[in-house]
Amino acid sequence: MSAHGIHTPTLDRVSGPADLKALSDAELTALADELRRETIEVVSRTGGHLGSSLGVVELTVAIHAVFNTPLDKLIWDVGHQCYPHKILTGRRDRMLTLRQAGGLSGFTKRAESEFDPFGAAHSSTSISAALGFAVGREMGMPVGDTIAVIGDGAITAGMAYEAMNHAGHLKSRMFVILNDNDMSIAPPVGALQRYLNDIAAKGPLATLKAVAEGVEAHLPGPMREGARRARQMVTGMPGGGTLFEEFGFTYIGPVDGHDVPQLLATLRAARARATGPVLIHAVTVKGKGYAPAEGADDKYHGVAKFDVATGAQVKAKSNAPSYTSVFGQRLTEEAARDPRIVGITAAMPGGTGLDVMARRFPARVFDVGIAEQHGVTFAAGLAASGMRPFCAIYSSFLQRGYDQIVHDVALQNLPVRFAIDRAGLVGQDGATHAGAFDVAFLANLPNMTVMAAGDEAELCHMIATAAQHDAGPIAFRYPRGEGLGVEMPERGQVLEIGKGRVLRQGREVALLSFGAHLGEVQAAADLLEAEGLSVTVADARFAKPLDHALIDALVEGHQAIITVEQGSTGGFGALVLHYLAGAGLLERGRAIRTMVLPDRFIDQASPAQMYEWAGLQAADIAGMARRALRREAEPRGLRLV
Amino acid sequence: MSAHGIHTPTLDRVSGPADLKALSDAELTALADELRRETIEVVSRTGGHLGSSLGVVELTVAIHAVFNTPLDKLIWDVGHQCYPHKILTGRRDRMLTLRQAGGLSGFTKRAESEFDPFGAAHSSTSISAALGFAVGREMGMPVGDTIAVIGDGAITAGMAYEAMNHAGHLKSRMFVILNDNDMSIAPPVGALQRYLNDIAAKGPLATLKAVAEGVEAHLPGPMREGARRARQMVTGMPGGGTLFEEFGFTYIGPVDGHDVPQLLATLRAARARATGPVLIHAVTVKGKGYAPAEGADDKYHGVAKFDVATGAQVKAKSNAPSYTSVFGQRLTEEAARDPRIVGITAAMPGGTGLDVMARRFPARVFDVGIAEQHGVTFAAGLAASGMRPFCAIYSSFLQRGYDQIVHDVALQNLPVRFAIDRAGLVGQDGATHAGAFDVAFLANLPNMTVMAAGDEAELCHMIATAAQHDAGPIAFRYPRGEGLGVEMPERGQVLEIGKGRVLRQGREVALLSFGAHLGEVQAAADLLEAEGLSVTVADARFAKPLDHALIDALVEGHQAIITVEQGSTGGFGALVLHYLAGAGLLERGRAIRTMVLPDRFIDQASPAQMYEWAGLQAADIAGMARRALRREAEPRGLRLV
Repeated sequence: MSAHGIHTPTLDRVSGPADLKALSDAELTALADELRRETIEVVSRTGGHLGSSLGVVELTVAIHAVFNTPLDKLIWDVGHQCYPHKILTGRRDRMLTLRQAGGLSGFTKRAESEFDPFGAAHSSTSISAALGFAVGREMGMPVGDTIAVIGDGAITAGMAYEAMNHAGHLKSRMFVILNDNDMSIAPPVGALQRYLNDIAAKGPLATLKAVAEGVEAHLPGPMREGARRARQMVTGMPGGGTLFEEFGFTYIGPVDGHDVPQLLATLRAARARATGPVLIHAVTVKGKGYAPAEGADDKYHGVAKFDVATGAQVKAKSNAPSYTSVFGQRLTEEAARDPRIVGITAAMPGGTGLDVMARRFPARVFDVGIAEQHGVTFAAGLAASGMRPFCAIYSSFLQRGYDQIVHDVALQNLPVRFAIDRAGLVGQDGATHAGAFDVAFLANLPNMTVMAAGDEAELCHMIATAAQHDAGPIAFRYPRGEGLGVEMPERGQVLEIGKGRVLRQGREVALLSFGAHLGEVQAAADLLEAEGLSVTVADARFAKPLDHALIDALVEGHQAIITVEQGSTGGFGALVLHYLAGAGLLERGRAIRTMVLPDRFIDQASPAQMYEWAGLQAADIAGMARRALRREAEPRGLRLV
Repeated sequence: MSAHGIHTPTLDRVSGPADLKALSDAELTALADELRRETIEVVSRTGGHLGSSLGVVELTVAIHAVFNTPLDKLIWDVGHQCYPHKILTGRRDRMLTLRQAGGLSGFTKRAESEFDPFGAAHSSTSISAALGFAVGREMGMPVGDTIAVIGDGAITAGMAYEAMNHAGHLKSRMFVILNDNDMSIAPPVGALQRYLNDIAAKGPLATLKAVAEGVEAHLPGPMREGARRARQMVTGMPGGGTLFEEFGFTYIGPVDGHDVPQLLATLRAARARATGPVLIHAVTVKGKGYAPAEGADDKYHGVAKFDVATGAQVKAKSNAPSYTSVFGQRLTEEAARDPRIVGITAAMPGGTGLDVMARRFPARVFDVGIAEQHGVTFAAGLAASGMRPFCAIYSSFLQRGYDQIVHDVALQNLPVRFAIDRAGLVGQDGATHAGAFDVAFLANLPNMTVMAAGDEAELCHMIATAAQHDAGPIAFRYPRGEGLGVEMPERGQVLEIGKGRVLRQGREVALLSFGAHLGEVQAAADLLEAEGLSVTVADARFAKPLDHALIDALVEGHQAIITVEQGSTGGFGALVLHYLAGAGLLERGRAIRTMVLPDRFIDQASPAQMYEWAGLQAADIAGMARRALRREAEPRGLRLV
């Protein structure tokens, strides 16, 4: 009996993958059904990535039944489809802690289990990592087989192509399972597949394709067409498995990714006979087996807690618009005024808010796929042609386009506008999705202008400012989640480049905020003022160029200056320090402190909790100010950067 | 008559691409011959990328004859093959300034000419940029056709794949010319090609492949085989043009890239009839038409000045080993002692020195191709399997693997060793190849250890240190060119992590060096001591973790502290400042200065000249020290970070 009140007799006999070896194929099929129901039950209580996990339930069972994890290395690309895998690999009793503080990660994670040999959360890394393990095995390391499971979206990224190219060149034995949930299978084709896979299970792999083609040629017309279509599904390109065969992979498929016996037969045959890289093409349905998810893939990609019977999600009430929705709406308004504005997203139209613009101007929003490198340089080409591109990519994913930002955008001083959502700590997605480094990797580049929005009204101004900024590249960052609930301007105003603003003027300590921590900074100022201190609060708006006059005034008028940002060292605070050093202002002996994210990766929790762990809450800022003013002793043994 | 004493009657009539329109096809063929001789003559006097430029002489003539640059946008991938293009586009009289201070760039460059609509130097960006221009044209921007010329090496990078995927999806009219110099053509195939291309010039493009296949089937056996091979040459994969057709490109080829009439016919037909993306596969010979270059592709990729008659290059005498050769040799010695050490390079075995290791341990060096993203994560997989991977990638190219460093290496704390050559300013390759940002993009990451070698002996120690460092990722940087000529240790010693060293102890000013500017820092100290000042020189060795005890002592014992590094803001100096701020040491009122690369991209020159422009020579450091000590007035109007 499951802890959740659902009947799971087979699953209850499984404490780890080794137990699957004792189950019959029929029992494994039953196990998959129970695993699906357990997954739905868990996610209804925790929220999370439901659709992708439901799509791989049978794959998860079949892989663990056929292969010998953890000696065999199973690598889930992106890792958000790993809930059934976690249930089967000794983490069932902790599933209700998923994505919560102190609980299980929503992704695979090395530190969490030996069954997660290579963690993920960004896409398209699995084939590279699996190849690394495979070569390690060839060089004597204690590694069995390596299996990468990668989606049809993830495999379109350049990195996956590079990895397949190299794997085919090395000819190392490894298994790539293409989890293709782009379309479902018509019944006649499904029948053909079963037939083909029986052959696959019995004959040598190399002959499979020839056999398949021979069979196909003898089918009646409509069925032949179906078979042809099935072979053509891979990544939407005609030619089917040919692409993978060109890379040197043996191609098997497509197989029905929800048919346990078919999967078992295929994987057993592949495992028994493979000598080089093998690609197994499994066709799956995202959200499989749960009607509300099957019916609405997008909505059920990442879900809140929900009612299992109805599928209705529990939505938190919000008091202020999200930064994302403000971006989507205000950019659309700018686009209505300026036909040169276009939007670029890397497979995140909804997440970035560009879907709002796409509804009104469908021809002016470009979804380049999971392809940040191309996306950035494509935007640079557009800018060079005279357009005004807004390249909207999350902070952590923009890391994928870093060289293109340096070499194609900054060096050529092309006016690409970078709209950077998910800046700072992001909550349940944890460390992999933290937007910690964007200020450091952007603001140290020549020609680049870098802004951060103190609140959602400021975001409006920054969109307007970026739209007008043809002098070179410009970036603006803003966090996940809701704004502060401030009054919104009718229309964004174009800001003076490199000018900050003073929000309250004091005499003792200056809090210099950069970006969306401004609310917390104001709260810290309130705390300090309640103690009788005189506090200045300034919003820098720009990390680059810095507002030198503002900083000069803060040094002139205060004993201590604290910079605060939702980012790493090397960013805004560092640039303030570089300026103070170069201007000879450090000789004034002021107490300067740079409050940044700590020098460690921070696991998932609520953003507020994560910032508490990071030592960046109002109380922390106030404490830092007091110590800088020598009103409070330094904590023992603590060194802050 | 050419300025160089060679007879160039046709070329002399050309002052720009428009003049090519008045030439007959026979004259264009003559022009190509003259252009080749002029290119050889120029590079014999300047040095540079000879082989790749000689490979595209006919392509350059044909493209400019058929298309209407600069309205049509011609984008050379990597850009190092652009010398003939520069000669034809109004820069002939400045060719002898190539790659020199104040002269022409060795790459395409927007700031240099309207005929360079999108500069390059890193590979595989051209299709993305060309697609951006093509979409700009569709949206009303003043752009004609767009043409990307990309090599068979560059097209294997993931970024090119992402771009082709998107181009095929958008179906925009654009031309990609695949410059395939991987192998030469056997005569019978060349004959077939001419035949096929006459057809291409006369018939609609879409029928070309079918016609070609029909023709092929009716050829006698050996010739048919040759034709099949020719069609299979693309990126080394069987299937020929199929790959590009799967992306939605019309595929034409292969054509003989040195046959001007064939190229003209092909380009004219393509230009007249294309409605969507077209890939033209041109087979060329690197170094074509100059025997010493054709015979030795690698040696003539980048050449010094040479004697045209013999091909003998003028080599500068060196007094010390290059950092690259020290790395290659010492890593090989470490690898002989430790079978877990493997090397990874992204298409740069010679440039990184890994070819030395590959000669002794061929199975332990992995060339992943132009694929830095994959290369980094492949190394992470190797590390996770228990191997000790050294990932040797130039500083500026490592930018391509930044997200993989963050997400796959640092976040998982995997012991990948990054050997970062070409750190700092690199000389004739200019701004695109400057290793300016690696310390900023690495040392702000949790878990990362970052070292820089003060001289070539230090590099030996850092290789040994990295080899033993299994606690997490570690990086060490070193510059292009020769070491200081210091005595070399028998064997590298394992350094204590996070410990610097004091080279001379003084009392007034401390010069805290990070990396290969140490020689210049010592020279600055000599200057200051000659003036009677008491100077400390320290070599930090580590940017992360910092040597806090060393920094504390410098603050304690000196009035002024100057950090010096060959890198941008946000790196070593920034981390020192963050530390001083957090430790409350700025309240001491010391004069701190961080000498870093300036906030602009620096054009090509000798490294010494570039560092002079950067204000980082010994005299600059000494001047900074004097001003920090108030021995000299601040220069008027100058603000240094």
